[in-house]
Amino acid sequence: MTDADQLTALMTDLGRRARAAAAQMATQPRAAKDAALTAAAAALRRDLEPILAENAKDMAAGREKGLTPALLDRLALTPARVEAMARGLEDIAALPDPVGEVMAAWTRPNGLRLERVRTPLGVVGVIYESRPNVTADAGALCLKAGNAVILRGGSESLHSARAIHARLVEGLDQAGLPADAIQMVPTSDRAAVGVMLTLSDSIDVIVPRGGRGLVERVTRESRIPLFKHLDGICHTYVHADADPDTARAVCLNAKMRRTGICGSTETILVDTALTGTLLPLIIADLQQAGCEVRGCERTQAAVPGVVPATDADWDTEYLDAIVSVRIVDGLDEALAHIARHSSSHTESILTENAEVAEAFLTRVDSAIVMHNVSTQFADGGEFGMGAEIGISTGRLHARGPVGVEQLTIFKYKVRGTGQCRP
Amino acid sequence: MTDADQLTALMTDLGRRARAAAAQMATQPRAAKDAALTAAAAALRRDLEPILAENAKDMAAGREKGLTPALLDRLALTPARVEAMARGLEDIAALPDPVGEVMAAWTRPNGLRLERVRTPLGVVGVIYESRPNVTADAGALCLKAGNAVILRGGSESLHSARAIHARLVEGLDQAGLPADAIQMVPTSDRAAVGVMLTLSDSIDVIVPRGGRGLVERVTRESRIPLFKHLDGICHTYVHADADPDTARAVCLNAKMRRTGICGSTETILVDTALTGTLLPLIIADLQQAGCEVRGCERTQAAVPGVVPATDADWDTEYLDAIVSVRIVDGLDEALAHIARHSSSHTESILTENAEVAEAFLTRVDSAIVMHNVSTQFADGGEFGMGAEIGISTGRLHARGPVGVEQLTIFKYKVRGTGQCRP
Repeated sequence: MTDADQLTALMTDLGRRARAAAAQMATQPRAAKDAALTAAAAALRRDLEPILAENAKDMAAGREKGLTPALLDRLALTPARVEAMARGLEDIAALPDPVGEVMAAWTRPNGLRLERVRTPLGVVGVIYESRPNVTADAGALCLKAGNAVILRGGSESLHSARAIHARLVEGLDQAGLPADAIQMVPTSDRAAVGVMLTLSDSIDVIVPRGGRGLVERVTRESRIPLFKHLDGICHTYVHADADPDTARAVCLNAKMRRTGICGSTETILVDTALTGTLLPLIIADLQQAGCEVRGCERTQAAVPGVVPATDADWDTEYLDAIVSVRIVDGLDEALAHIARHSSSHTESILTENAEVAEAFLTRVDSAIVMHNVSTQFADGGEFGMGAEIGISTGRLHARGPVGVEQLTIFKYKVRGTGQCRP
Repeated sequence: MTDADQLTALMTDLGRRARAAAAQMATQPRAAKDAALTAAAAALRRDLEPILAENAKDMAAGREKGLTPALLDRLALTPARVEAMARGLEDIAALPDPVGEVMAAWTRPNGLRLERVRTPLGVVGVIYESRPNVTADAGALCLKAGNAVILRGGSESLHSARAIHARLVEGLDQAGLPADAIQMVPTSDRAAVGVMLTLSDSIDVIVPRGGRGLVERVTRESRIPLFKHLDGICHTYVHADADPDTARAVCLNAKMRRTGICGSTETILVDTALTGTLLPLIIADLQQAGCEVRGCERTQAAVPGVVPATDADWDTEYLDAIVSVRIVDGLDEALAHIARHSSSHTESILTENAEVAEAFLTRVDSAIVMHNVSTQFADGGEFGMGAEIGISTGRLHARGPVGVEQLTIFKYKVRGTGQCRP
């Protein structure tokens, strides 16, 4: 066999085993799944030292490779981060079990009784980069929803991910669940991802978690549907009737709380009416916090110290302390700008005008629309969904945060008394 | 420009216009959508004669091409069939509007109020064969759900489909809705389908409706997720505790009511305990109704006149008056057979034993599972969902009948009072 044949055989086998494990997982009681999560959390805590030692290998290799400080920070495990992972598993165990939930029930005139019942989705593939905690979060969410998962972490975090994965498998084992329910791709060969993306018989959905390059590659190559977002070009629209203090606080938070997350605001739209009043204050707040402000021509004319924005700025996810600001002539122009430039992730309006707010919430076609809220709340945890495996800007199955419930599907149970169709 | 370039430009423009129409449709009130459906129904009735004349052209061409009587029957329009289409549109108008429905609402400890609100899916592509009524059904379901749709009918039914499409567009027009909400691919060039399947920016989901060849081609080529089923290899399992009269009536109906639909039973599994009692009666009923019965070795030994089944029979969707029969040693063997050979469409158990029935309903991993019901009820209309655009055996977004509700997705509305994320 050539290397390519071997890789295909390896990945196909992984997929086959995941499908078999998924069939076993589908009918497991809540107690077994939660026991696996709790045991895995205990194993993470017990093995803190060996896990940190494995992580140290990744960190050393990363430094040698010249990874940026930001990437090294993502890669690093600390006692606090391992504890957070363990607590994350326990939090997921505490969530209700979605499987078996009767979503709807009705009876037909001929006496047929129908139920739409929640079931696991099947097999989930997760392709991610250097954050080791994704191993724990994604594995646990898929387990809770009764799925099998195939995890493919970045090569930079391989030792860390393996160390975490081993404790998840120990949890499965202690609870009498199949170890194949949480598998890791055992090679760091990049070609393995390519093969994984063709396994449409054994993987039902792929979740790419990482930078634009990763998501673009997966989108281009995948024969399997995706839960993904490419960009988080989120907008905050300051309407003429915004409360000034609210608007200043929320704009600052929406951009600057953490600039590297997908829910961070990249563009602030401000009504013309506020050009001489609120606009300069919002910009001053941002600049004082160390944010570069790039403005449209009217913004530049109104406020000194604003960098000229180019056309490309309106389509850029900075993921940095940079914001673009544009003055708009009211709601319709704001909606038009958002329809054209948004990545359909999260948009927020700041206003005390309830009617305008409702129009905005209805007419903006994004996964998450907000009124008087910082876009930084665009997060499954903040939504009360427990952890999330990612955020989807797609329009199929799951939109917005993908939590335990979004990792399920349903089937119909039809109960009768011998009905024949006329 | 080459022909291929022209085709790509044509299809891309179709997609772009569909996306724009979808944005307009998303916020239309129920009244406008229902008015369009009602007006289209009236136009179909008013123009019965011209529609039949267009259909006659397709029929003449079909006869000349040597289409089978079954295909010609699918293609034929009659006054009754046009009336049924018109009534179908009115039935869809009478369904509740799914768009705007608050699916869930909750409040977070920090005061954020969240709603999951139903929205249209976006743009649906439907690729179908010769049934002209799919034009009306698919167009109407997509319209009702606030979507735009691109219809691609078979070349055999092009005149009929165009005639029906024109009346749908008249309905849109009368209701002040964009004509581009229901577009037809204007060429019968087969390459147009290939281009359509690459338009992932402008089409959110593709529904292939037709024979195995069509569905396989679409599955192979599509870069867009599908709502589809390839086969309907449905099983009826006669458990030892089945009521004999119920079992005989349901088996006969499940196979023979209409043999050409996907919910028709292809394999009957019978418990060993019934070998000398119920099995011969079930087989005799089927044979008397003109059904060929192919049996496993034990069935052949027990009942004379049974044709030997080969291994291939258990994986064959006959779509004809043929059934395979296998004797199994109880529930577990029935479940194992189904897990191996089912196409995950519809499975039914016949038994008076409630505990066994519940185990079957839980453990069979198919879109539809039934107890004491003929599998021929596997149909969106019979489920009370109004019409269906198809049945999905996939595990993403929609499983089972795809009706108006399954042609929607959701977004999150988050209302606050100036919350900033700590």
